[in-house]
Amino acid sequence: MILQDLAERLAAQLHGDPALSVERVATLSGASSGDISFISHKRYRNELGQTAASAVLLREDDLPHLAEGVAALVVDDPYLAYARVAGWLYPPVEESGGIHPSAVVEEGAEIAADVSIGPHSVIETGAQIGAGCRIGPGCVVGRHVVLGEGGRLEANVTLCHHVRIGRRVLIHPGAVIGADGFGFANDAGRWVKIPQVGSVVIGDDVEIGANTTIDRGAIDDTRIADGVIIDNLVQVAHNVQVGEHSALAGCVGIAGSARIGAHCALGGGVGVVGHLEICDNVIVTGMTMVNHPIREAGVYSSGTPMEENAKWHRNAVRFKQLDEMAKRLRRLEKQSKDESTE
Amino acid sequence: MILQDLAERLAAQLHGDPALSVERVATLSGASSGDISFISHKRYRNELGQTAASAVLLREDDLPHLAEGVAALVVDDPYLAYARVAGWLYPPVEESGGIHPSAVVEEGAEIAADVSIGPHSVIETGAQIGAGCRIGPGCVVGRHVVLGEGGRLEANVTLCHHVRIGRRVLIHPGAVIGADGFGFANDAGRWVKIPQVGSVVIGDDVEIGANTTIDRGAIDDTRIADGVIIDNLVQVAHNVQVGEHSALAGCVGIAGSARIGAHCALGGGVGVVGHLEICDNVIVTGMTMVNHPIREAGVYSSGTPMEENAKWHRNAVRFKQLDEMAKRLRRLEKQSKDESTE
Amino acid sequence: MILQDLAERLAAQLHGDPALSVERVATLSGASSGDISFISHKRYRNELGQTAASAVLLREDDLPHLAEGVAALVVDDPYLAYARVAGWLYPPVEESGGIHPSAVVEEGAEIAADVSIGPHSVIETGAQIGAGCRIGPGCVVGRHVVLGEGGRLEANVTLCHHVRIGRRVLIHPGAVIGADGFGFANDAGRWVKIPQVGSVVIGDDVEIGANTTIDRGAIDDTRIADGVIIDNLVQVAHNVQVGEHSALAGCVGIAGSARIGAHCALGGGVGVVGHLEICDNVIVTGMTMVNHPIREAGVYSSGTPMEENAKWHRNAVRFKQLDEMAKRLRRLEKQSKDESTE
Repeated sequence: MILQDLAERLAAQLHGDPALSVERVATLSGASSGDISFISHKRYRNELGQTAASAVLLREDDLPHLAEGVAALVVDDPYLAYARVAGWLYPPVEESGGIHPSAVVEEGAEIAADVSIGPHSVIETGAQIGAGCRIGPGCVVGRHVVLGEGGRLEANVTLCHHVRIGRRVLIHPGAVIGADGFGFANDAGRWVKIPQVGSVVIGDDVEIGANTTIDRGAIDDTRIADGVIIDNLVQVAHNVQVGEHSALAGCVGIAGSARIGAHCALGGGVGVVGHLEICDNVIVTGMTMVNHPIREAGVYSSGTPMEENAKWHRNAVRFKQLDEMAKRLRRLEKQSKDESTE
Repeated sequence: MILQDLAERLAAQLHGDPALSVERVATLSGASSGDISFISHKRYRNELGQTAASAVLLREDDLPHLAEGVAALVVDDPYLAYARVAGWLYPPVEESGGIHPSAVVEEGAEIAADVSIGPHSVIETGAQIGAGCRIGPGCVVGRHVVLGEGGRLEANVTLCHHVRIGRRVLIHPGAVIGADGFGFANDAGRWVKIPQVGSVVIGDDVEIGANTTIDRGAIDDTRIADGVIIDNLVQVAHNVQVGEHSALAGCVGIAGSARIGAHCALGGGVGVVGHLEICDNVIVTGMTMVNHPIREAGVYSSGTPMEENAKWHRNAVRFKQLDEMAKRLRRLEKQSKDESTE
Repeated sequence: MILQDLAERLAAQLHGDPALSVERVATLSGASSGDISFISHKRYRNELGQTAASAVLLREDDLPHLAEGVAALVVDDPYLAYARVAGWLYPPVEESGGIHPSAVVEEGAEIAADVSIGPHSVIETGAQIGAGCRIGPGCVVGRHVVLGEGGRLEANVTLCHHVRIGRRVLIHPGAVIGADGFGFANDAGRWVKIPQVGSVVIGDDVEIGANTTIDRGAIDDTRIADGVIIDNLVQVAHNVQVGEHSALAGCVGIAGSARIGAHCALGGGVGVVGHLEICDNVIVTGMTMVNHPIREAGVYSSGTPMEENAKWHRNAVRFKQLDEMAKRLRRLEKQSKDESTE
């Protein structure tokens, strides 16, 4: 792509040769001729002054720091501009199309004309696969699943029966959508399984990471709203609801019937207790245990800071005396006050 | 099913038309005609008064709060009764049966007559598949695996060689049973793999969640007892033992050779250190680090409560001063005592 | 194998019949005739005195504690010796070899002559599979993947396009290498996907656990160095680097662009924040949150100790008052000092 085109599409101000073409994205320090790079933080200004990129996406105030002879595209949000440019330079690979002869498509499945289905995938009866879907090798699409147009399943994805997925959803390898929720009643010490008769409903433009699991609802459905992004190895239990454009980082676990608002971001390894609610626009930092509802937008955390082990040990032991320490402190204060008023 | 039948099977007291039939389970608020619902906690009494269900499972003391015209089945444990009713209303889907032509069954595998094996599954030599087993698409059953009668593997399950599984075990998609334990000796900084020559032995009536992993033993076997239920993305390391009817919630991790008693419940994200023992009837709350043995039944926890991030930060910093604070507190107390005895 | 051979290969001092043969490894307490066992810690000396093994690997100072009539191989590191002996007694199972007729090998894939490929595996165009590789059933090897000689993929492994893997790498079932990193820019509340154009590069002699995920880089590559061992359900985000011979235990999560040094060991469930660096020779204990860089070799920890729930609750509540308590303590100290200097 030539810089003039990029500038127009990005509504960017161009400093440099409009006919110059770029072919790849690169980091500032790794770039060479033909690469376009970007600067997202002032701390990289040093690299900006030495980059061998052909062009750089940057903010106006970064411009004076740019290496001589490098073209600049001035934008408000260079990281977002980089995302767009990368999307143009690296369009998704076109599949050869068609249904591989080794794929098994059961009678009663409805497959749009231009769908591609990889080797050894299985599409069970009643499934509906929308226009433009690309299903990788080794996937299983269960009975009566609906996969909306433009959906993409990478390799070895499992969609269990009756799961309903919106348009342009991308699911990475090994993800399992719609396994039974973990629902059991206890009968004198023995577990009695509760059939999980709800399903999973996923909106449009959702991305789901590798080996992530999203369980089907016990009675009602588990729901992932439009635009949600979910990383790898995330566990979403039955009847959870995740609101529009929220992000769940790797290893997050959300217990049953919890409700996450819109535009939330849960950091890596966050755990959310069941049946509670998190309002919109909440950020939870990594490995936090969300053990009560969050009713105000903001940033929330739990945990203790990392220390050298021997020091940690001494402090951790004191954690078990904390309540007692608080009482002793209160006693001293009272005593001190009594003395001063004597 | 008609209410009279349900009442008899549940030994419930019926208030309403014995000939009334119900077809589905539903929540109190989501129910309509033909649905049977349940109330498991007083906080839902408001919904109980407004439900449009045809019948409700409830305790005697909930009866006065039930909406007019709705039939009632009075039981001691409505949640357990709901589990049973749902089991009757939603029996497992019958498979067409038979071995799909695309499945690969190696010579020397023993498959009972009525087993169904899905497309693209692989049954290796020496495997024994018991009567009534249903194996979904894309599963791999390794050499000499034993899968007891009535077993069900959902899609893309992997059972590694020589794993032995009891009767009526249900394994959800993507689970891996019997991969090598994480066993290595260190030779001057380099890891030397220790062959994992034990196996995994799983009892009867066990359920294992999606993408969960249970490793084979180093020498002896990893053992999961009868009636254990395991959620998604759980890691059970080599030589772990889990006792009868215990429950492991999502994202639990149990390190090597730990022994969990019977009737225990580990909450989501709990981690158990290796080589330690948890006695029977222990509940561990979510995200707790079990770093020492538990010798008495009870409820155990660790972690810190979630707070608004700025406040958390101030408190977390103090955690690193905790031992020093304890010493200063002690000094003040001593001083105060000295003064008062002067 | 006869003891004389073992003694020579291990450079061990033999006490007992050189012609005695051993066939299996066993624990001290589980051993019987024909078994070789080992003692790795003094606490097992009691078992050493009662073992029914034919031979035991032990340190010189354990020798007097050995049961009568049992042969001894005296070595410096019995656990390492056991690893080696087990490796000799249990060589990897030889595959029948060849490409199963149900496997799909696309045109343009280069497969060395002696490679074995299991049923229903898929090797996409441009992939290069080195000499001696064994690929289990249900695996997907994407376009242009390089798998070095002696590599072994167990069942249902997914290698995404262009991933490059060294020699003698063992990957357990369900692992996913090279899925897209979790990279998105935010455009007024909506996530814009950033194409992940880097890859994953894995060194020689690496082992990767079941259902573990290692994401491809955003621009540059994610890198796992030679000799690294990774357990099950580990998440390695895009652009992470892990140094030589480091070990990642189960359920570890490493956020984007973090760099782990050589000879490090991260305990189970450890989380590492993105973009930070851990130097060589660092041990991090289980479930620690690594929230700042580690610049000195040593042992590091975070978290709080497990307690009985009611006690934990009382202490955890005080955690939220910690900063305030510290200030009150300081005030008392000041007051006390003022008084004593009055």
